[in-house]
This record gives sequence, structure tokens and C-alpha cells, in this order.
Amino acid sequence: MSNALVLQSDFGTADGAVSAMYGVAYGVSHDLRICDLTHEIPPYDIWEASYRLIQTVSYWPKGTVFVSVVDPGVGSDRRSVVVLTSTGHYIVTPDNGTLTQVKRMMGIAQARLIDEGVNRLAGSDKSYTFYGRDVYAYTGARLAAGVIDFEGVGPLIEVDDLVELPTVPATCEPTRVQGTIDVLDVRFGSLWTNVTREQFERLGIAVGGRVEVAIEDGTRTVYQNLLTYARSFADVYVGEPLVYVNSLDCMAVAINQGSFAKAYGIGTGTNWKITLRKAPRLVYE
Amino acid sequence: MSNALVLQSDFGTADGAVSAMYGVAYGVSHDLRICDLTHEIPPYDIWEASYRLIQTVSYWPKGTVFVSVVDPGVGSDRRSVVVLTSTGHYIVTPDNGTLTQVKRMMGIAQARLIDEGVNRLAGSDKSYTFYGRDVYAYTGARLAAGVIDFEGVGPLIEVDDLVELPTVPATCEPTRVQGTIDVLDVRFGSLWTNVTREQFERLGIAVGGRVEVAIEDGTRTVYQNLLTYARSFADVYVGEPLVYVNSLDCMAVAINQGSFAKAYGIGTGTNWKITLRKAPRLVYE
Amino acid sequence: MSNALVLQSDFGTADGAVSAMYGVAYGVSHDLRICDLTHEIPPYDIWEASYRLIQTVSYWPKGTVFVSVVDPGVGSDRRSVVVLTSTGHYIVTPDNGTLTQVKRMMGIAQARLIDEGVNRLAGSDKSYTFYGRDVYAYTGARLAAGVIDFEGVGPLIEVDDLVELPTVPATCEPTRVQGTIDVLDVRFGSLWTNVTREQFERLGIAVGGRVEVAIEDGTRTVYQNLLTYARSFADVYVGEPLVYVNSLDCMAVAINQGSFAKAYGIGTGTNWKITLRKAPRLVYE
Repeated sequence: MSNALVLQSDFGTADGAVSAMYGVAYGVSHDLRICDLTHEIPPYDIWEASYRLIQTVSYWPKGTVFVSVVDPGVGSDRRSVVVLTSTGHYIVTPDNGTLTQVKRMMGIAQARLIDEGVNRLAGSDKSYTFYGRDVYAYTGARLAAGVIDFEGVGPLIEVDDLVELPTVPATCEPTRVQGTIDVLDVRFGSLWTNVTREQFERLGIAVGGRVEVAIEDGTRTVYQNLLTYARSFADVYVGEPLVYVNSLDCMAVAINQGSFAKAYGIGTGTNWKITLRKAPRLVYE
Repeated sequence: MSNALVLQSDFGTADGAVSAMYGVAYGVSHDLRICDLTHEIPPYDIWEASYRLIQTVSYWPKGTVFVSVVDPGVGSDRRSVVVLTSTGHYIVTPDNGTLTQVKRMMGIAQARLIDEGVNRLAGSDKSYTFYGRDVYAYTGARLAAGVIDFEGVGPLIEVDDLVELPTVPATCEPTRVQGTIDVLDVRFGSLWTNVTREQFERLGIAVGGRVEVAIEDGTRTVYQNLLTYARSFADVYVGEPLVYVNSLDCMAVAINQGSFAKAYGIGTGTNWKITLRKAPRLVYE
Repeated sequence: MSNALVLQSDFGTADGAVSAMYGVAYGVSHDLRICDLTHEIPPYDIWEASYRLIQTVSYWPKGTVFVSVVDPGVGSDRRSVVVLTSTGHYIVTPDNGTLTQVKRMMGIAQARLIDEGVNRLAGSDKSYTFYGRDVYAYTGARLAAGVIDFEGVGPLIEVDDLVELPTVPATCEPTRVQGTIDVLDVRFGSLWTNVTREQFERLGIAVGGRVEVAIEDGTRTVYQNLLTYARSFADVYVGEPLVYVNSLDCMAVAINQGSFAKAYGIGTGTNWKITLRKAPRLVYE
């Protein structure tokens, strides 16, 4: 039984690009199970590609092969690699920062350069713009189907040399923790931060307690309010904002059945800072 | 051979949520066939989830397991259930009204409460916000793969107790039938009503005949005109409106190669009434 | 082992239409592998359906069965056909021009009319609006699963009689080539033209050389500039426009990490002409 092959890209699904990748993969082996992570990564957004991998990879069986194609440098000398994560999953990708989150949060055991002399769709040598189909889907399919093993990908390279995007780690003080807004839960407008549950818990706020949340975009304060630290959305009223632990075990901010991001015009990236502290006691005199 | 597992949600496909559900399901069994119904249910729209099930379920082989996750009450005490329809299909869902249409139009033979002591992804006990992955996809996969049978889901509960959303039945008079606009055919802008073909036929309008259609939003008349009752879109001119029988054997209104909903700003729900009657004879004097 | 079944339509994925087609296909055979080409063809856009097929078909293994349902004439007397391409692939479709590009660029070996007396979902005779489910998905599944062979589809018809949409061939002069803008690479806003690489190469412009690009919409000149003929996007600066060879081996125009189509309001169709010529030498005196 072959391992699953899971595809991610910024191609969208409105044209035939993704389907051509499927076709090439099935050409390697009829028996593959091919699935999608997402193809709606915003065009060229390597950071979001990195984040969607860390959100998903560990829920798949060991041995699953992921192919991630967000490749603004296609045709340049950026490297093409396959890594084996410390959780036993494979990721095929251009080495352009797509592995940032996986490297930091899951760990990468080994990395190999794709030997395109072997691992490239026959007859595709004149195509310079669609590595996703000609190299990445093809190599991923060969690995998932067992046509090659991990060694068959190409030579070992140093894990330390894999490209990482810059990130700003969360900082903890006794009474507050400050982090960045890394990504949105697109459909529901929740903010996902890089503040871990463990960092937050040092503030000593119990479930049901109140948190002061401040959000800044550069020097501009965009939001400041007192929110409930809730176990889940159902613990607050419809329309009420809340702080909760998301499925990555990090702190997130949302409005129950509303969109926090739309309500306050919140964006993502290292310029978007969030500060959490224990809410002050309100004393009326 | 395992049964197919078919997933529906309001998660969209822009992030990794759906793929995490796939991963968990494949973790139960490599051999599953997993497909999508849709993941574009508008956020929290239980009614539309209920409608998409009735539109689709009966076209799948008996034994197919559907998982529907539109779950605004996640983390509350709403129940998690699996039902066996009278057509021999299974549906895994929060008991929040998602089964309304299936219960009324197809019938439910048996219902069981999910025993989360058994049917919950190992290690997910601290996650309170993603039942779709931790309980519903996991339980659905176990049922589809034959790891558990229907009894293995948990204890029987009363079918009568399953939550239903309020609906307004169509009313028939000798010369007219009045119903509600239940849902849109999103892509083509057609209106799907709860008036059945059988109710409409009592009006005695032959195919090719004329129908007076009136649409009201509360007390406001939004549309009133004489339309052709057509067998299919090709029976009228491009741009011409028509009344026809949709794939649920109910009456629908559309514009051939246009969008009726956009043209007249039509919405859905029990406030949107539609009245169909035999068109009057037009007499010029 | 059955052949893959690949579905294309203009149904979108927001409702249950595509899933009903999957269900019907799995009802023919549990063992099918069913995949999507795209379901986001703009409603009724036969031309784009034709283009997405030519973009994709040849990357799939021989024997793969494609079902394409963009069917504005559903219920009319338009014919329903299955063709065998000269590359060994099958396409199930209404005969309404969907095969235009495949017929011209790949070639069609044989065509057969679907005998609906045999190849129609049992019990669907009263449905006139969903041939995609009742006839096309059903027939495609039977062919892919080996329930019928190609002869089992129905009687042979003349390939020459298959409906073609009008196209305007590119015209070559010694110093310039003029073609049409056929389709957009939706996600990245690139323009795909009908000028082949071979036609372009007659102009004698080397990779890295300069091309004068003029775009007209009817009589209006929409764009005129000197661009680099690049092997891939990475050969030009971010934000710089380029001319390159796309994955159909035709000439395309794009902005590296931008959207050419949005930047200049470019559309598609035979009214949109593009002229490529060797750039003049710029002499400052």
C-alpha cells in the first residue's frame, strides 16, 4: 500500500494546473491516494504556505508525502528539496522558506536535494515555469508510491542551511506576554498568534477569567479591550469576543459567530503585535 | 471494501482544517475513499447544510457515511449523533438542526449518540474547538472502514428528539400554491422552493403553459410576472425567466443563462414567500 | 484496475451538484478513482471548458475518462457524445464546442453518440435539467470502470461533424506575429495567447532579448511596451513584465509577482489581439 500524497499550492482550482499535477502523479502509479491540503494560498505567500503545513502535517499518518508549491522563484537557482520531518512525514518543496514553521515547531530530521537528472518528468526539459508539475508532483508521487526511497531523491544537504523566513519570537514578562499575529483563520476571521498556551498560562489567568488584549499595527493601537478567556466559542454570547487556545496549542482571538479580523481591520505579519495581560480589577469609586 | 466517507462543512478550503480531517480519517484506515460534499456552506448556516444533504445523499450508494460539520455550538452541550436514514445512509453531525430536511423528506430509521469515551481521536481531549476533526471525522472514518458498526457509535436515542429547524409548509388552494424560497442554486442564481411538483401539478398547468409568479419578502412584493412552465432551460429564450422542476422534484424559478436571484435581489428563508398560480388570460379590448 | 474519471463543470462546489455526480459514479463501481479538473468554469463558458481540457488531458495516463459538463443547451436537441482523442484519452461531453481545442490541437480519433437508452441512470427519465449527473457522469463511470467499452457508448458519428467554436488563427509576417488572447491564467493574471513558440521563434528573438508587445481590444490600443523575452519569471525583476513560453508551448505575457490582466484591464476572446515584434533599437541623438 502506497503512502498518501497531499498537494498544496497557490494555483487556485479555477484552471487545469492542479489537475495536471494529479495526472502526472497518477502516471507514476495508478494506486496512489492523492489529496489536497489547499490550493488557495495567496499567490507567492510563502509564509502562509509554511503555516498551513504546520497546521496539518501531524494529523496525517507517518510516511505521508506533502508537496507544497508556492514558488515565486521558479526558474531561478533556488533549490528543490525533500525533507523528512522528525514526525516521520515527507515534504517536497522549493527551499524558499516554506519549511520555516515545520523546522522550528516540529523539527526536520534530514534534508535532500532533488536530483533532477532522475526525478523530473520525461520530456519536460523545455518547461521552465511549472516545476510543481514537472519536478515536485512527479518526485512526490515516486516517493509516495515507493518507486524511489528517500535516498533516491538525491544527495543529503544540511538541515541548518534550509531557508527560513524571519520571525519575531513572543516575549514573556511576569504580567504580560507579547507576540505577533501570524495568520488568520480565513473563514471565521479569528487571529492566530505565536503566543503558546504555556506562555499564556504563566500569567495565571483561569478559564473564564478576563484578559486585557491590545493589538498594534506598528505604532498604531488598533484594538484594546477586556475579553473572556474561554474554553470554546460556546462559553461566550453570540457576538462576544474571546481569547482561546487554537488547534496549534497557541492563543487565538475571535468573535463568537462573527469575524474579529473584519470587525477591526486586523492583518498579519511581524508588524502586527498582540499583548495579553491579566485584566485589571475595575473599581468604581 | 469500505464504504465511502463524504465530508461537508463550513470551513472553506483556504486553510488546513479540511485536510486535517482527511488525515485523521486516513489514520483510521488507509483504504478509505474520502470525498467532499461541499465545504462552502456559509459560516454557521445549519439550514443550508441540511439542504445540501437532502440534495445529495440519495445519489450515493447505500452504506455511505456522511460527516456534516456546521457547528456553531461547538464546546456547548449540544449532542453529537450518527443517524441511519431510511435510505440506508449514515450521517455524523452535531444535533443542531442539520438533520431537519433529511428527517422530513427522507426519514430517519435510527439515531445514536456518539460515545466520546470510545469514538474520539487519541490525545485530543484538550482540544475543545475542533470536534469536526477529533470526533466527527474520526467516528465517520471508523464507521465507513468497518472498525465499528452502527451499534459501536453509542447508545440509541429517540429519532423524535432530534433537533429540527422551524419550517413553513407550502399551502395549496384550488387556484394557487404558496411556499417559501428555501435555498439558491448558488452558481446559476435559481430559486429553489418547497413547493413540490405534485402540489404544483394540481393547478393544471401543462408544460409550455404560463404561470403567474409572485415573490414577497415579508410584506414587500419583490417580483410579479407571467413565466413559462418549461421542461428545461433550453425551452425558453436566453435571458427569459422560467418555472421548472428541480433535481429535488420541487418547483424552481430561473433565468436561462442569467441569475434570477441577482436580477431581483432575492434571498432565502421563511420570510421569502413565493406564490404560483395559473396565469390569467390576457384580453385586450 | 479501472481508469481514472476526471470531472469538469461550471457548477462550482458550493452546493451538492458535483457530489451527486461523484455518488452516481461510485454507484457504478466502488473501485473508481474520481478526481476533478475544475468546477469553476465561468457559467456557460464553453470556450474556457475547451481550453482547460487541452491544458490538462495529455498529462493524465492513457485511458483516463474526462467528463466535461458546461451545458447551456441542456434539454435541447444538442447531442451527447464520447470521443477518443488521438492521445488515447476519452472525453464525455455535450457536443456544443467543448471539444474545439482538443479537436484542433490534439486530434480526435473516433466519436460516438451516447445511447441514452442504455447509458442513463435508472429512474432519472423525469429529470431534464441535470444531464451531468444522469447521463455524463454515469456514462463516464461505466466507461472508466470497464462496465462498457468504447463501442458500448453508442453508434459512431463523424468526427468532422463535431461542433467547433469559431477561432482566429495567428498570422505570421517576417517581422511580426499577431494572435488572440485566448484565456487568462486566472490566479496569476497572465495572458495566454494562440501564438505558438515556433511562430514566435521565426522573429529571431533570443532569450533575454526585447519584444515589442501591442494589445488591442477591437480598435482600441490597450497596451504597448518593450518587454524581455524570459525563460521564466525569475529572469526579470519583481514587478517587471515579461514574455515567456507557457505550459501549452504558446507565448504568454505576465508581470512577475503581479497581475498583467488586472494591471491593464485585459480580457479574452477573438476581439483581443496581441502583436509581437522584435523591439526596435533605441537610438538617442
